Amino acid sequence: MSILTGEMLIGARRVRGTHSAIHAINPATGEELEPVFGGGCKAEVEQACALADAAFDIYRETTPEARAVFLETIAENILKTGDELIVRAMQETGLPRARLEGERGRTVGQLRLFANVVREGSWLVAQIDPAMPERQPLPRADLRQRHIALGPVAVFGASNFPLAFSVAGGDTASAFAAGCPVVVKGHSAHPGTSELVGLAIRDAVAACGLPEGVFSLLFGNGNAIGTALVEDPRIKAVGFTGSQRGGTALMAAAAARPEPIPVYAEMSSINPTILMPGALAQRAEALGKGFIGSLTMGSGQFCTNPGLVLAVDGPDLERFLESSVETLAAAPATTMLTPSIHAAYAGGVARLEENSSARLVARGQSPSGPNQAQGALFETHAADFAADRGLQEEVFGPASMLVRCASLEELRQSIANLEGQLTATVHVEPEDHEDVRQLLPTLERRVGRILFNGWPTGVEVCHAMVHGGPYPATSDSRTTSVGTLAINRFLRPVCYQDMPQDLLPESLADANPLHIWRRIDGSMTQP
Amino acid sequence: MSILTGEMLIGARRVRGTHSAIHAINPATGEELEPVFGGGCKAEVEQACALADAAFDIYRETTPEARAVFLETIAENILKTGDELIVRAMQETGLPRARLEGERGRTVGQLRLFANVVREGSWLVAQIDPAMPERQPLPRADLRQRHIALGPVAVFGASNFPLAFSVAGGDTASAFAAGCPVVVKGHSAHPGTSELVGLAIRDAVAACGLPEGVFSLLFGNGNAIGTALVEDPRIKAVGFTGSQRGGTALMAAAAARPEPIPVYAEMSSINPTILMPGALAQRAEALGKGFIGSLTMGSGQFCTNPGLVLAVDGPDLERFLESSVETLAAAPATTMLTPSIHAAYAGGVARLEENSSARLVARGQSPSGPNQAQGALFETHAADFAADRGLQEEVFGPASMLVRCASLEELRQSIANLEGQLTATVHVEPEDHEDVRQLLPTLERRVGRILFNGWPTGVEVCHAMVHGGPYPATSDSRTTSVGTLAINRFLRPVCYQDMPQDLLPESLADANPLHIWRRIDGSMTQP
Repeated sequence: MSILTGEMLIGARRVRGTHSAIHAINPATGEELEPVFGGGCKAEVEQACALADAAFDIYRETTPEARAVFLETIAENILKTGDELIVRAMQETGLPRARLEGERGRTVGQLRLFANVVREGSWLVAQIDPAMPERQPLPRADLRQRHIALGPVAVFGASNFPLAFSVAGGDTASAFAAGCPVVVKGHSAHPGTSELVGLAIRDAVAACGLPEGVFSLLFGNGNAIGTALVEDPRIKAVGFTGSQRGGTALMAAAAARPEPIPVYAEMSSINPTILMPGALAQRAEALGKGFIGSLTMGSGQFCTNPGLVLAVDGPDLERFLESSVETLAAAPATTMLTPSIHAAYAGGVARLEENSSARLVARGQSPSGPNQAQGALFETHAADFAADRGLQEEVFGPASMLVRCASLEELRQSIANLEGQLTATVHVEPEDHEDVRQLLPTLERRVGRILFNGWPTGVEVCHAMVHGGPYPATSDSRTTSVGTLAINRFLRPVCYQDMPQDLLPESLADANPLHIWRRIDGSMTQP
Repeated sequence: MSILTGEMLIGARRVRGTHSAIHAINPATGEELEPVFGGGCKAEVEQACALADAAFDIYRETTPEARAVFLETIAENILKTGDELIVRAMQETGLPRARLEGERGRTVGQLRLFANVVREGSWLVAQIDPAMPERQPLPRADLRQRHIALGPVAVFGASNFPLAFSVAGGDTASAFAAGCPVVVKGHSAHPGTSELVGLAIRDAVAACGLPEGVFSLLFGNGNAIGTALVEDPRIKAVGFTGSQRGGTALMAAAAARPEPIPVYAEMSSINPTILMPGALAQRAEALGKGFIGSLTMGSGQFCTNPGLVLAVDGPDLERFLESSVETLAAAPATTMLTPSIHAAYAGGVARLEENSSARLVARGQSPSGPNQAQGALFETHAADFAADRGLQEEVFGPASMLVRCASLEELRQSIANLEGQLTATVHVEPEDHEDVRQLLPTLERRVGRILFNGWPTGVEVCHAMVHGGPYPATSDSRTTSVGTLAINRFLRPVCYQDMPQDLLPESLADANPLHIWRRIDGSMTQP
């Protein structure tokens, strides 16, 4: 017996939405899944935001230890949900068990990593500039600074990571870590997965004795509920992973508020892969195989999917292309996440087929069931690529474009003309290093992560990760949505001048009761 | 003989603008100052931005030491400009010599502080997560992260700090420190001061062997040149200090670009001052004197001017008010920065005089010359203050509003209803601490800096300073425009995955040749 009810969570309360009916669909079969989910409207947004606002001052001042335990309790509760979560996610997404079990591990690991980040305390950016009463011509006051949470955060889950970028994904984990209550708008493609994870969070809120408003989960079809959420004056930041159209709509709504707020939208990227001459000469065939493996993994439904390959024309590139064509031709069609994603993919491929600037060079195996993506590889010349911005539009799924360049300088110019990207991948041998050194400034201006001799799919959750990049890859190149730096998105500095010791927050008290790193008079000081 | 020519600086070149004529005015006399400055237009914006873009990749990769020396050379060159700078600034602003000499010291000190920040290297946020080739189920790649400069920055100087918040002010110093070329739109109220400082920077660029595009200085009347600057695709961030109207116009222009960019606008604040009952009982008269001293300092032309006082009604508050009225009545009228600032101040005071919700309780001495501000103190009740948003509009100059509250809870509610502010000041005695503890969460939500038993005017340039706050005090509460954290506004993270050692930037090389703090596998590691 499933515990699913199709209800939203407004704080601790389960509430059936009456504004719309949301049916999850099994993309592998096309059939509707039970139960029906009730979508909410502005009234439920207001209730959730009022609870979040009421919880904020209490939650943001929980001790690091209490907040870390809360994050760890969510992780435990997700694991306790057991196989029902995996089975439901498989039904709702068409993703295989191994992938979803791996993603669950990543989600749980991410929560635990943020628990450790919260305990370590560097996110507070605690600084103390002691008073200098004797300084001439003017004395210096005692000045102390810590970072505090921005306020309640709205999170919009992504369809392509039903666990790791959804209800308890990176945005939620980093916002909770920062001390922000979270109101999630669950993705309509996996409402059952969302409800199960939402219950795990709600139970963690209760188990940790936190105010119920720390978390709410809303459902709703269409844009109305999401817009209402971003426009609610109690919401102080937005996390979003999805399309450029969705992300820019939220950016516009947030900028038009009486009080504009930051939107962290991770939107689109075609992730250029550059094959340097030495690497091509050395291992063209292996590169072709590796490329298609990365391209077709997970039906190509990754933000970091390699949708663009750039190389200098020549016989080695032909060997790469032959290997790619052969590998792709053997790649089976695989189920995509939703009928609409599949339709958009098919439309994107058809648009490229009709574009005379590009040439179709290979397709994967034909579909054998509903909503299956058939891989597609196109090629074009750098001059045509430069002339037609349409060729660098993301086609979400296993489609990619090889750009033949006449020279490394033309390759560099092609990169310089790209829109902002999440990643760039460079395949090199030692003899390529000097040429790559010349390319690096151009790459750094365009992307958030530069990889060598690997493939961009697979985003490690760690301290040094940057899953971000210049617009339109994201709305804010100063941030990352994966990795521990993601917590910084939800914090702001506050300075305390000549504050009496008994009023100071623990992070800034002389005795350093939290045992955290602090900068004192400009010098990093060990706990 | 003055070295002033009235020309702009486009890189190393002096260029006479032909689009408009800008006359500096001595506000103390009303007379026009020589020479006439030529304002530029879109063509000069494009030239300056093209040079900045060309300089960017070279400048951002200068070593910390080279960049620090550049900042120090600017400081030395400003000092070398000698008394001509002070005299010209006095003529253009009406500010007294001592104030401007102090401000020069602050400007020079700020540049030197950022030189030390650049050398220390924490701004790079260098992180290394070493490879874990044996990890199960998947190996971990070698992941390293540093922060790099955003790109060329547009800086709009403020009128009220012709040195410290202008051509070589905090925005410019922190952008240079981050590795960003800067294009300054000089404030039309002090073009001569701007040209002198601009030449000091230009000469430092040349002396340090940097590409000329690292710095340009443009002049122009009206909004056209500023809008063109913010819209130029090569500009990647904007620093601004000025009015809310000006700041929100730049925010809108930046958000409407094909590639939106961050705007750091420091705009308006009335800086609530809270007099707690214990403090009022203890020292009402001294508080009145101190308050009027802070209010009238520099003709009240500070972002942190105490434009709002909140206290619980009673006999102690009457004593405070009597002392304030008496002190203000004796305060001489002083010259404001420009005729238009004076006109806006007079208009703002007249508007309050006509507002039946407020009552004028004191004025300062009458003006004895042109453009002099006569102090003004109003009072109102908390209920009226809550009902009329117009009463919390900033009146830039020595005008303030006392809000009489019936209780501490009404006082707290009045703060909760305030717009975002740069500062809040609390006057307390030990017996007030418990009540203040209840107020703190509300204050923290509203302001960037909370001061105790002092006055908000006077902003220390140090590590722990926050000169920022929720909208509309600034456009971005996550940042500060004063203090070393200001450098973070102009940086973004880039991750390098499995990058060959010989290609890694020095900040991330194994040997740590820059001797900087780095986070390795999550742990802070000493140089």
